[in-house]
Amino acid sequence: MAPSPSEERRLTMPNGDTVAIGPLAPAEHDALFLLFAAVVDSGDGYPHAPPLTRAVFDATWVGPVTLAVVARLDGDVVGAYYLRPNFPGRAAHIANAGYVVAAARRRRGIGRLLVEDSLRRAPLLGFDAIQFNLVFASNPARSLYEDLGWREIGRLPDAVDGEEAVIYWRRVG
Amino acid sequence: MAPSPSEERRLTMPNGDTVAIGPLAPAEHDALFLLFAAVVDSGDGYPHAPPLTRAVFDATWVGPVTLAVVARLDGDVVGAYYLRPNFPGRAAHIANAGYVVAAARRRRGIGRLLVEDSLRRAPLLGFDAIQFNLVFASNPARSLYEDLGWREIGRLPDAVDGEEAVIYWRRVG
Repeated sequence: MAPSPSEERRLTMPNGDTVAIGPLAPAEHDALFLLFAAVVDSGDGYPHAPPLTRAVFDATWVGPVTLAVVARLDGDVVGAYYLRPNFPGRAAHIANAGYVVAAARRRRGIGRLLVEDSLRRAPLLGFDAIQFNLVFASNPARSLYEDLGWREIGRLPDAVDGEEAVIYWRRVG
Repeated sequence: MAPSPSEERRLTMPNGDTVAIGPLAPAEHDALFLLFAAVVDSGDGYPHAPPLTRAVFDATWVGPVTLAVVARLDGDVVGAYYLRPNFPGRAAHIANAGYVVAAARRRRGIGRLLVEDSLRRAPLLGFDAIQFNLVFASNPARSLYEDLGWREIGRLPDAVDGEEAVIYWRRVG
């Protein structure tokens, strides 16, 4: 049987816990809203302005999204990512992705599992590359992205509060 | 009186004709749809897949747009551009813009007038930079953008039909 982009995968974290990674369910929208609102409040990694509104949440995680995936630990949403076309039409083969992990669940390898999972599902959805348009130069996730094969293709000056942002790209599949 | 981002400006083209540049009126949506559909059909400059649908037109020129501006020659829409935030929230000070000139009206300086007009209106709308996310490496408009102060900040491999794209940015205002 061919792999499906919507399968649920059960993976073992470095500490031995099992995390379930699969498509965001409608019943989990509220939990992901709260998780993402806390990330936006902290200013970590995303340029979105706090407080997060439901309209901005939907415009990020629901409306334009090809697939949103969550990581569940004991049934709780502890992290997520989305994949969407980064451009229309003939350039829609390039995905954009965004990842979040709840602050209290970081440094356990959940982020790496989510990024690796996106590399697996993106080609099943028809994407052949994943581009990040705006990664804060100070974002600690940069070393993970570079470890996992993204390369810097550009630099955007004065992106947020005078800080430069990095543009990343990698082929997938 | 402070300049307004929605003023109509009457400008003289290099050949002596007068072009009127001002906000897109609802009654001009059909004319701009036809103009942009022809550009999309030709594959010139935009990654959009032909045939252009009204939904894709609206998603490019209406929905997310801060301001759409047209150039009128004897009352006909002969070119246009849009300005929109290129990112949400704290990075929304960076605009994205796209320009079109009807094929039969090119090589008369209309494109340059539109790009210059966008540099004038963008800061009036609160933008402090304009970024182009995907300019085909073969796009002849690149020399105009570079003349008018954009600088290359990145390169996107294999953007459309294997062709590389250039990412441009310039400060405005």
